[in-house]
Amino acid sequence: MVKLDFNKLGGLVPAIIQDHRTGEVLMLGFMNEESWNRTLSEGAVVFYSRTRKKLWKKGETSGHVQIVKEIRVDCDDDTLLIRVEQVGGAACHTGHRTCFFRKLDGNTLVQDGRLVFDPKDVYGK
Amino acid sequence: MVKLDFNKLGGLVPAIIQDHRTGEVLMLGFMNEESWNRTLSEGAVVFYSRTRKKLWKKGETSGHVQIVKEIRVDCDDDTLLIRVEQVGGAACHTGHRTCFFRKLDGNTLVQDGRLVFDPKDVYGK
Repeated sequence: MVKLDFNKLGGLVPAIIQDHRTGEVLMLGFMNEESWNRTLSEGAVVFYSRTRKKLWKKGETSGHVQIVKEIRVDCDDDTLLIRVEQVGGAACHTGHRTCFFRKLDGNTLVQDGRLVFDPKDVYGK
Repeated sequence: MVKLDFNKLGGLVPAIIQDHRTGEVLMLGFMNEESWNRTLSEGAVVFYSRTRKKLWKKGETSGHVQIVKEIRVDCDDDTLLIRVEQVGGAACHTGHRTCFFRKLDGNTLVQDGRLVFDPKDVYGK
């Protein structure tokens, strides 16, 4: 079995989520050991929510789950790179394809991401 | 000025480093506010090393600095995606192009990354 180093970050490892076809970085989440094991057994991404302090299967509300296509572990065993198929085409709760839909332009952030859905339609009002 | 949320992770934000041409994810590091400001002013990536507890300019020993080409901030202002030109062609201290040079195959990790340099040549013996 693969042993990850959960000690460096108080029981968590960061997991970078990348679109397996386009290479776009969609988001970053955190996993504790339980969410890591569930990700492996379910073949879909399960995070640990730091704000809600509980497991959080990505897409459990929106249906926009992330199907695991490939898992990579970094040289220190403390970071994951998970390449996924993003169901519904959008990873961000704002409806954008990626959570990184803003880029720095001088001193300000400008939007240049693609809006895939209207959050009101998916999460209700 | 862009305000990042350093509070969620005890003064740090994770920074995903991606090759700006190929889209390969090269590594993940952490930045505190000082390293973030230095990254902006120097145009090259400066991390905060959690193990050494000090600023760490990527490539300061190897010469393999990461020249900033684009900076993206996620929807929660607590994660960075920095697209870089990787000088020397390799981000990992093992000499591999990316720190994610191992992928999960069943229950074990297999190497499939490209070795760009021999660490002995770069860091000495």
